[in-house]
Amino acid sequence: MDEQGKKPEWSPEECDAEFTTRVIGHGPHGRGSNGDNSDEAKRRPTSGPQRQVRPRELTVDQYVRGVLDGDRSILARAITLVESNSTEHQEMAQQVLRQLLPHTGRAIRVGITGPPGAGKSTFIETLGCRLVDQGKQVAVLAIDPSSSLTRGSILGDKTRMERLSRSAACFIRPSPSGGTLGGVARKSRETMLVCEAAGFEVVLVETIGVGQNEYAVRSMVDFFLLLTIPGAGDELQGIKRGVMELADAVAVNKADGDNKVKAETARGELAYALHYLAPVTEGWHPGAFACSAATGEGIDELWDVIEGFRSQTEASGVFEKRRKSQTLSWVHMMIEDYLKSLFFNHPEVAAALPQIEKSVVNGELPTVAAVESLLKLFKK
Amino acid sequence: MDEQGKKPEWSPEECDAEFTTRVIGHGPHGRGSNGDNSDEAKRRPTSGPQRQVRPRELTVDQYVRGVLDGDRSILARAITLVESNSTEHQEMAQQVLRQLLPHTGRAIRVGITGPPGAGKSTFIETLGCRLVDQGKQVAVLAIDPSSSLTRGSILGDKTRMERLSRSAACFIRPSPSGGTLGGVARKSRETMLVCEAAGFEVVLVETIGVGQNEYAVRSMVDFFLLLTIPGAGDELQGIKRGVMELADAVAVNKADGDNKVKAETARGELAYALHYLAPVTEGWHPGAFACSAATGEGIDELWDVIEGFRSQTEASGVFEKRRKSQTLSWVHMMIEDYLKSLFFNHPEVAAALPQIEKSVVNGELPTVAAVESLLKLFKK
Repeated sequence: MDEQGKKPEWSPEECDAEFTTRVIGHGPHGRGSNGDNSDEAKRRPTSGPQRQVRPRELTVDQYVRGVLDGDRSILARAITLVESNSTEHQEMAQQVLRQLLPHTGRAIRVGITGPPGAGKSTFIETLGCRLVDQGKQVAVLAIDPSSSLTRGSILGDKTRMERLSRSAACFIRPSPSGGTLGGVARKSRETMLVCEAAGFEVVLVETIGVGQNEYAVRSMVDFFLLLTIPGAGDELQGIKRGVMELADAVAVNKADGDNKVKAETARGELAYALHYLAPVTEGWHPGAFACSAATGEGIDELWDVIEGFRSQTEASGVFEKRRKSQTLSWVHMMIEDYLKSLFFNHPEVAAALPQIEKSVVNGELPTVAAVESLLKLFKK
Repeated sequence: MDEQGKKPEWSPEECDAEFTTRVIGHGPHGRGSNGDNSDEAKRRPTSGPQRQVRPRELTVDQYVRGVLDGDRSILARAITLVESNSTEHQEMAQQVLRQLLPHTGRAIRVGITGPPGAGKSTFIETLGCRLVDQGKQVAVLAIDPSSSLTRGSILGDKTRMERLSRSAACFIRPSPSGGTLGGVARKSRETMLVCEAAGFEVVLVETIGVGQNEYAVRSMVDFFLLLTIPGAGDELQGIKRGVMELADAVAVNKADGDNKVKAETARGELAYALHYLAPVTEGWHPGAFACSAATGEGIDELWDVIEGFRSQTEASGVFEKRRKSQTLSWVHMMIEDYLKSLFFNHPEVAAALPQIEKSVVNGELPTVAAVESLLKLFKK
């Protein structure tokens, strides 16, 4: 550690040399020059002469200016800041976000979900490349709130999204790892905002893993697409309960070659089933479509549907209304998360809970009495 | 007020004569003799010589013994105690419930929902009478968490459920009025337990009003029935979003006369749509049925389905597993309700919330920063 280093403004008062920084110039040694490929930077062996080289720390203003200028290197670092679990980084991240906020909101946010094997990555690769070819800047984010560690699924994806990941107009970011206060979903939401401030016009959010992530993604996007695969009847039950009701469109992927007829049948059945579900977006009737990420067939048409959705809901005011209510519900979700962790981590509550729950389940204690005794412990 | 009255054990220490009681004998003057018709008791003019007559107060043991003996008069009063918003009554109610709990759980709990006009009351009347004819004891409860006042819908129902309400083996209870700690749904759940302890073998819970009551009812019953009416295509969209996914069966009512063909078509379409929804009860595939509450056609068959559901899920352990998880989730729901009211009723939070929410919605304040400032106020 360089003892002549300077402590950055955001370092905690009681901290020691671990927060000092060395000002180093732009160049091949700074981590900042590694572009968005911070994973590679992390994997670089730490032995050898480069060991002492630490990335230049940025100020809030530098982060803000860099992101607004579309500097990929600073964008990647800003996202790392947003994703950091350290209190100091989180505080700085909030200052950065506050300044970026006026520059956010212009992208169309599209969530993409589907059962394993539906071909989400190939679909995103094909769609993303087409959008880039149209001159659009595309950010791809992954969200996996069920994982407390980066499972790296999107790293696998990055290999599959070979062409897209090489494109200068595209930015692919894996799922952040666990944290507090709203957790992974909160981080993904803020990452999305940072990308918007950096000028990305399309944000594709891919759901990864199992659990409640469809709801988390639905609550941060404008348009939610359910991707599925052709299969006779029962195979379609692979679609998780409740997910079809969240979708603004369902697309049967892999509608190519021998699959084409099966895909069309599946599409018809899904269209029929959608008929029974009230639309998730006011005034918009979700349709069922067929496409092939492999051949590209139907992909442009699907994007036209998304564009049409945007025009229609912007005109009706539903677009803006949903965004506002999404923002508010994020505030409420985070507060609820906090309150629950406050309660269930309370030492006396945590100690008494297993026995009380057991008594309730065994029918020895009425639920209200159980709640009252827990509240008594909490209020102590 | 009788100044020689005795204060009951459960009266608050600081209370005055308003809690004294007069011990009066069983007989036509005691409110306890009014059976379950406490509404009538309330409506009785309070002028005249009867004005001084107050119901004999019961002890916890008297409540418990009366309910277990199936005494209708005491059952009605026990439910009134459970529904009371007074802290003292609630404490006593919990003592009563604690003793009743070992005698609960033997009934089959059936929730019934459906759009207005689906004929829920007629259906319950017909089904209830058949069950009573089979020698079963039937309790009918209504739940309407959206109402803070007894809207009296089930009073209208009671007129429509004319035959059933006259039956000695049947007990009909309107929706309780508002309250705290889990509110109306909590009260309905405890009323259900009291009815079970009194020996009722079937509890039919009817959803009334709009809002989230389907979820509240689903979380307290074993079997959830969605009642609907025949109509071409779009009319079926009257079914609220998400409700079909909660159902263990869908029944098309009014399948009689000219409606019969339409009802059969609707049944077929619903069966098809159900095919796409993962079952809400593990291992049980929800079916679509047609019936007529007016002619009675299909009602016995529908009950057979419910009986079959019970045997199958009891054998597989799903029945017991769901009841246990329902009980636990009630505890958690009540705790969350409490925490939220604690937070949002905090004077400083309540004062600052509107401005903070406005700043968030207008994009001036990041959501995390908003949450943090609210938490700071809360922790003060």
